[in-house]
Amino acid sequence: MSWNTFGRIFRFTTWGESHGPALGAVVDGCPPGLAIDESMIQPFLDARRPGQSKFTTQRQEPDQVRILSGVFEGKTTGTPISLMIENTDQRSKDYSEVAKAYRPGHADYTYDAKYGFRDYRGGGRSSARETAARVAAGGVARLAIPEVTILAYVSEIGGDAIDPANFDADQIRANPFFCPDAQAAKRWEKIVDDARKAGSSVGAVVECVATGVPAGWGAPIYAKLDSDLAAAMMTINATKGVEIGDGFAAARLTGEQNADPMYPGNEGPRFSANHAGGIAGGISTGQPVVVRVAFKPTSSILTPMPTITREGEATELFTKGRHDPCVGIRGVPVVEAMMALVLADHKLLHRGQTGR
Amino acid sequence: MSWNTFGRIFRFTTWGESHGPALGAVVDGCPPGLAIDESMIQPFLDARRPGQSKFTTQRQEPDQVRILSGVFEGKTTGTPISLMIENTDQRSKDYSEVAKAYRPGHADYTYDAKYGFRDYRGGGRSSARETAARVAAGGVARLAIPEVTILAYVSEIGGDAIDPANFDADQIRANPFFCPDAQAAKRWEKIVDDARKAGSSVGAVVECVATGVPAGWGAPIYAKLDSDLAAAMMTINATKGVEIGDGFAAARLTGEQNADPMYPGNEGPRFSANHAGGIAGGISTGQPVVVRVAFKPTSSILTPMPTITREGEATELFTKGRHDPCVGIRGVPVVEAMMALVLADHKLLHRGQTGR
Amino acid sequence: MSWNTFGRIFRFTTWGESHGPALGAVVDGCPPGLAIDESMIQPFLDARRPGQSKFTTQRQEPDQVRILSGVFEGKTTGTPISLMIENTDQRSKDYSEVAKAYRPGHADYTYDAKYGFRDYRGGGRSSARETAARVAAGGVARLAIPEVTILAYVSEIGGDAIDPANFDADQIRANPFFCPDAQAAKRWEKIVDDARKAGSSVGAVVECVATGVPAGWGAPIYAKLDSDLAAAMMTINATKGVEIGDGFAAARLTGEQNADPMYPGNEGPRFSANHAGGIAGGISTGQPVVVRVAFKPTSSILTPMPTITREGEATELFTKGRHDPCVGIRGVPVVEAMMALVLADHKLLHRGQTGR
Amino acid sequence: MSWNTFGRIFRFTTWGESHGPALGAVVDGCPPGLAIDESMIQPFLDARRPGQSKFTTQRQEPDQVRILSGVFEGKTTGTPISLMIENTDQRSKDYSEVAKAYRPGHADYTYDAKYGFRDYRGGGRSSARETAARVAAGGVARLAIPEVTILAYVSEIGGDAIDPANFDADQIRANPFFCPDAQAAKRWEKIVDDARKAGSSVGAVVECVATGVPAGWGAPIYAKLDSDLAAAMMTINATKGVEIGDGFAAARLTGEQNADPMYPGNEGPRFSANHAGGIAGGISTGQPVVVRVAFKPTSSILTPMPTITREGEATELFTKGRHDPCVGIRGVPVVEAMMALVLADHKLLHRGQTGR
Repeated sequence: MSWNTFGRIFRFTTWGESHGPALGAVVDGCPPGLAIDESMIQPFLDARRPGQSKFTTQRQEPDQVRILSGVFEGKTTGTPISLMIENTDQRSKDYSEVAKAYRPGHADYTYDAKYGFRDYRGGGRSSARETAARVAAGGVARLAIPEVTILAYVSEIGGDAIDPANFDADQIRANPFFCPDAQAAKRWEKIVDDARKAGSSVGAVVECVATGVPAGWGAPIYAKLDSDLAAAMMTINATKGVEIGDGFAAARLTGEQNADPMYPGNEGPRFSANHAGGIAGGISTGQPVVVRVAFKPTSSILTPMPTITREGEATELFTKGRHDPCVGIRGVPVVEAMMALVLADHKLLHRGQTGR
Repeated sequence: MSWNTFGRIFRFTTWGESHGPALGAVVDGCPPGLAIDESMIQPFLDARRPGQSKFTTQRQEPDQVRILSGVFEGKTTGTPISLMIENTDQRSKDYSEVAKAYRPGHADYTYDAKYGFRDYRGGGRSSARETAARVAAGGVARLAIPEVTILAYVSEIGGDAIDPANFDADQIRANPFFCPDAQAAKRWEKIVDDARKAGSSVGAVVECVATGVPAGWGAPIYAKLDSDLAAAMMTINATKGVEIGDGFAAARLTGEQNADPMYPGNEGPRFSANHAGGIAGGISTGQPVVVRVAFKPTSSILTPMPTITREGEATELFTKGRHDPCVGIRGVPVVEAMMALVLADHKLLHRGQTGR
Repeated sequence: MSWNTFGRIFRFTTWGESHGPALGAVVDGCPPGLAIDESMIQPFLDARRPGQSKFTTQRQEPDQVRILSGVFEGKTTGTPISLMIENTDQRSKDYSEVAKAYRPGHADYTYDAKYGFRDYRGGGRSSARETAARVAAGGVARLAIPEVTILAYVSEIGGDAIDPANFDADQIRANPFFCPDAQAAKRWEKIVDDARKAGSSVGAVVECVATGVPAGWGAPIYAKLDSDLAAAMMTINATKGVEIGDGFAAARLTGEQNADPMYPGNEGPRFSANHAGGIAGGISTGQPVVVRVAFKPTSSILTPMPTITREGEATELFTKGRHDPCVGIRGVPVVEAMMALVLADHKLLHRGQTGR
Repeated sequence: MSWNTFGRIFRFTTWGESHGPALGAVVDGCPPGLAIDESMIQPFLDARRPGQSKFTTQRQEPDQVRILSGVFEGKTTGTPISLMIENTDQRSKDYSEVAKAYRPGHADYTYDAKYGFRDYRGGGRSSARETAARVAAGGVARLAIPEVTILAYVSEIGGDAIDPANFDADQIRANPFFCPDAQAAKRWEKIVDDARKAGSSVGAVVECVATGVPAGWGAPIYAKLDSDLAAAMMTINATKGVEIGDGFAAARLTGEQNADPMYPGNEGPRFSANHAGGIAGGISTGQPVVVRVAFKPTSSILTPMPTITREGEATELFTKGRHDPCVGIRGVPVVEAMMALVLADHKLLHRGQTGR
């Protein structure tokens, strides 16, 4: 079946395909009385928008969001907020090549296996354009958690990682890679440009930190904060891995190395480390919540790849036209949105059960 | 709030604490007519049972499962299957030490921050004993997906990985580490034993492979098969990361290196690689589904760690008594169970929507 | 919180207010491959449309539905179907009167008590215009259950009931009351017209019969078919009661009188009565599913009613302008839609669990 | 599929059959810190217990509830509360008669149509014994809503209604019918006893009033308080109708007659009537919430009824042994429990979204 809703009580549902007239999200369960208008959501869409540098796909979409419901006199009403983004750049492309065979690494074959048809127009529902809808929804979620600050950035491209010593939050919006390390950004220019010129692609790792999350959000056992974050991140196109805190590196530490000792603090404990990424037993500790997401290199490359037609015959296929050499870059605003959406839900869940 | 149910239409709910009279699971939505009795579930609990070697905690629990409902004349009825496991080894331990301060790295502080109380008896609901209930539930799930074979094993302990060239499935049950590489198992004996003697702990990586999953299971967008697997795995105690297929390694590959070319096959396509881990666009490809899970080293170590009391005063705490030097080992049957539970749910979801 | 989604695996989410730019529904979980276009949904909206006779409100809305997603080459894709209906008749009315006090019997006060604001423009989200969105969703649901025929009609207005002996299905669309009894329709003209002229209102009972539902749909215990139908019907504006089969009348019968004896039939049993309304133990029997829904008289009347202002002061209020003397009449297409939506969900749920 | 969980964030799952070893409920999402022990739940089970007068079935069950989890030092922990009730009176009855044919009016045929088997032992999962589990769960729910008082009673048996003028709450526990009208109780003795002696059965109407519900609980549109109450009540065995406030009678009133005028009050408005039953637009008004539930006469009667065997051959069947001449009577504690469970859920939902 399809399942296009996420969240438990702060929920959103997305709809729309790459080549339909529009796409959108319906945000339900939002607290009432929050000041809101399109201008508070648009910046997040702008950050995600394609075609802003030569390092991302050249599809041109204004991605202008419209609020169709749930707002009255500039405030949320508590009823569903319908957000719509029109598709404008549906250039009348020749799909005859793509239509005749499955693009390897894409969802072409699996959608057909599941649903029995081929929507060859840019991937249909499996297109990353869907993430625009959740970035919009994430903009609403942020309003519900004003106590939280969310910051994501690319920490690694093509295996080349940032140096934490160079971390500078102001750099993130200063280069086309959401890179907090100016020197790494420099190096990545070449890496991504080389990939672009070669018609190749590279992977990336996106890191996201949420500060201001109070201790106590999250829910044993099957709505642990880390579990919901993992689910959220793994729904983003091209993701293949999720880590909380030290993640896989923690599996290589001893208990002593991985410890987060606690000391008396002003409000709640003070911690001398955060290997846990701000979550213990599925519940926030009050430290920054840290998530890392692995994006594979896009499968859309110029090198012809063996594949089969719908009839099962051997052929080859390669990507023509617009091309995104590193899809992970544009994942940054999407990761931030999913973080906001998960946290908003857990704030409300916690308040619902405990009254705090 | 708490949320102790997992799944969408094949669902299970677990209950129980480490030191209560019993724990259990209610499995709902199971297809009717499946042959079942306790002996078909018990082996999975036996595999998870503690105290079977010196490499795991010495708590002694028979973990005998009882089916209390949902079965008639040896077959599932389609109504809820209640599974109960009595706690027998609740040794009357002196908790005065643990009660007075939060164990760092455990959920002690976060549960208190959320719920306003300390269940100092072995972690209460946050104890890994809860996983016994889902292993039982997983035993039921397996009956619903006879076409699938699930195999998990430890692929890395304390940073020491298996050599894929040595992979031998028969080895997995032949050593106390669920290790498919006899040579690695040899090495791990020393690693884990050293940790045990030193009162330290080490992390581990568990890999799980499901073969026989047909193409088409999974659900765009927010119930993608990989998203549900990530959520499922991240609910297991001590997990900090989840990967599908090549996972984080894919973020370091180029599009060419990461490709899974397709060729004509007998039933559906034949793939020459499986970097994707059997999932594309959130839907199974027909290849083996591959998941990798990072387990941190347990925080229960003999080295005293700085912490605070409930009143916020500085103190130190270390773990006395039963000790599990590598909790990842016993994660193997739990990872298998979660894989089975997710797949059973998706089989039914797919059939519900498409009739296939 | 708000909760604008209905269904378990065939689900829909509605959004929009009476006086916003548009309203809509997102239908998720629909089977793929069903032939669909707007013309297959529009007739249901046309049946619900206001202003078609003097017996319903004179608001003029074309209620033209647009499909924005989920359809490719004339068939459902299995992904979310976004349906949008623009509001056109938002006449710039003077709300100053309504804005200053709560309309008694309306949701004005309760929405304010819940959300802390007054959307005085025609009731905002609580307006019956929301039902247009579900009528559209119901049009999609019907496509998923071609084996079922759904027929609703008004069986009683202002206490005046139809005579079952006069039942003629062809009459239902032949009069402005969806009345299957030509003689009753005659009488109702006067009842409703008298109410209209007096600025008064009358209640109604709507009956809905679904034939072709096979035995076996429904789900013990908390998704019984009758329970889901009751929930569905009770979400419709102005409903105050739901009955299955003989309903409250059954409470006045003896066990002998209420019996539905079974006899050998061609396919499944043959029943000599249907007091149960086609449902036993929450599961369909194969007989027609019969539901009856009570609609109260609308609270919008010309007689001034005592009420209070937002500040808690006594005042009086009466309805000006457009007026619907019997809201139950336009409930007919909505009841049909909810029946279709519940049945589609249960068809898929049943197939998911049992494979049948 | 089966669906044995009810609620959105205060949720419970029941399990167990009439003739298995036990049945139970798992209550999830309960607020932490509520004082609780078995003695606070047992009285509700005692009120429901069969065999307390000649007017209900003579099955003898102590229905002793045990709390297996979720409680620590006499308080709820916020984690799942497992409640278990052992079945003791599974008298080894001769089922050969029942096993060979479907009991008309029971769920025998529909369960078989759905699941493909006959659990002939007292109805299996479709037995009204399941309601013991929810009465226990309801006992927990009451603790979460101390501001609310819930009172249910039988208002009509076999078509003979109480006289509201005689209403005396103290009478309700003073007679075997939960009847608030001493004179009606007198008359009912004869009605029910006559039915019992004749091997017949009679229906009943149960009314339930919840006072103390603040304005603002409930959720537009698909979790309206009345919708959730209708769903809740319609899951109870033998129910065929649900009304809120005036219910079907409201469909026979004019708008003027059905009005609930509002006046200034001390806290919120004062209403001069409550035709709406305490709910407007799906949200509580602050007035008493009033629900009425129709129970059919049980189909278990001594008069032989035509039916068919599993093989489809004609036969006759009648009920031997224990017999409940008016199942509605024992519905009273179940209706109260469902009211409590719905209200607890909505209290938490409201608090989650609005913080109030």
